[in-house]
Amino acid sequence: MKNPPSLEELITALRCLPGVGAKSAQRMAFHLLQRDRAGAARLGAALTRVLESVRHCERCNNFSETAVCALCSSAQRDAALLCVVETPADLAMLEQAQCYRGLYFVLMGRLSPLDGIGPKDIHLDRMLQRAADGVVREVVLATNFTNEGEATAHFIGEMLASRGVTVSRIARGLPVGGEIEHVDAGTLARAVIERRAL
Amino acid sequence: MKNPPSLEELITALRCLPGVGAKSAQRMAFHLLQRDRAGAARLGAALTRVLESVRHCERCNNFSETAVCALCSSAQRDAALLCVVETPADLAMLEQAQCYRGLYFVLMGRLSPLDGIGPKDIHLDRMLQRAADGVVREVVLATNFTNEGEATAHFIGEMLASRGVTVSRIARGLPVGGEIEHVDAGTLARAVIERRAL
Repeated sequence: MKNPPSLEELITALRCLPGVGAKSAQRMAFHLLQRDRAGAARLGAALTRVLESVRHCERCNNFSETAVCALCSSAQRDAALLCVVETPADLAMLEQAQCYRGLYFVLMGRLSPLDGIGPKDIHLDRMLQRAADGVVREVVLATNFTNEGEATAHFIGEMLASRGVTVSRIARGLPVGGEIEHVDAGTLARAVIERRAL
Repeated sequence: MKNPPSLEELITALRCLPGVGAKSAQRMAFHLLQRDRAGAARLGAALTRVLESVRHCERCNNFSETAVCALCSSAQRDAALLCVVETPADLAMLEQAQCYRGLYFVLMGRLSPLDGIGPKDIHLDRMLQRAADGVVREVVLATNFTNEGEATAHFIGEMLASRGVTVSRIARGLPVGGEIEHVDAGTLARAVIERRAL
């Protein structure tokens, strides 16, 4: 004898969440039914609402409830700077650091030929259009310093170089508060190679 | 600038899932919106449906879509045996093992005074009623061999002893295929103490 059908369906549906397997899905379903029905109702409503209202901003490709998102519509930002990031989480971190006043383009991914993710999947055509609007003077590449992030930055850099836009890459080096004794060799080597004049 | 409100609400709502913190909730929300909108719609619908249709079986307290669940209504089961388990997952494991043909009572928890979970929270009054229906001859205690599961079994055992019902506890010992060299000392000691005549 198994769980009732609607409970089995919930367990299966929960497995669409990343990192959730059969056992965790069951644990989550039991928890919701047994201990947090209000939370389950809230989650159900939130899912329905988000699917109805969230789409991609026409300018930066980030999630937005409006055709152009609040950040892109803001008059406070420097439209001559365009920062390219992989994900909305990266954008959020940059905003939190309060170090950048330009605009963004969110790739929603990174080049990854092994996973079949090519230039089209990360919207590079739209990114190029955006960078060629005549107002953007500099594109700041802020993809991750992973193999895939580096390859993505390199690919975008090459594309933009031929179009006469200034392209820059965020700096690598020791973290703030970092101690030379404890940093990994790769980071230390990069910090020496990419040293800057005082 | 933050995520759109409906996206923020989804991230907050996802945190009602056990083991999901702020970072995973954000990752899950982005994944659903970006890569699996169909999965998100399915999950939303499954949550709504499960809340409408799933309640507790009047007899065994397990999740059920009907007043009395399929297992309790089955004529194939031995109504003289009542097995007490902590969770529906435990019941499912016992059913999978195909070793038991009686009925169940699901506590939906265990005694845990430190967490404020007392006899009422695990429905012991209903369990007693169930065991005193005149048909049940033996109650098999299949709570976990954790401190809390043991305390729960002990408590229920004491209660039933005074009511003239036979009470048994599932066996402890080496697992099937277990090697004495590799088993933990506590389990080995129990296996010796609880040895049975051949």
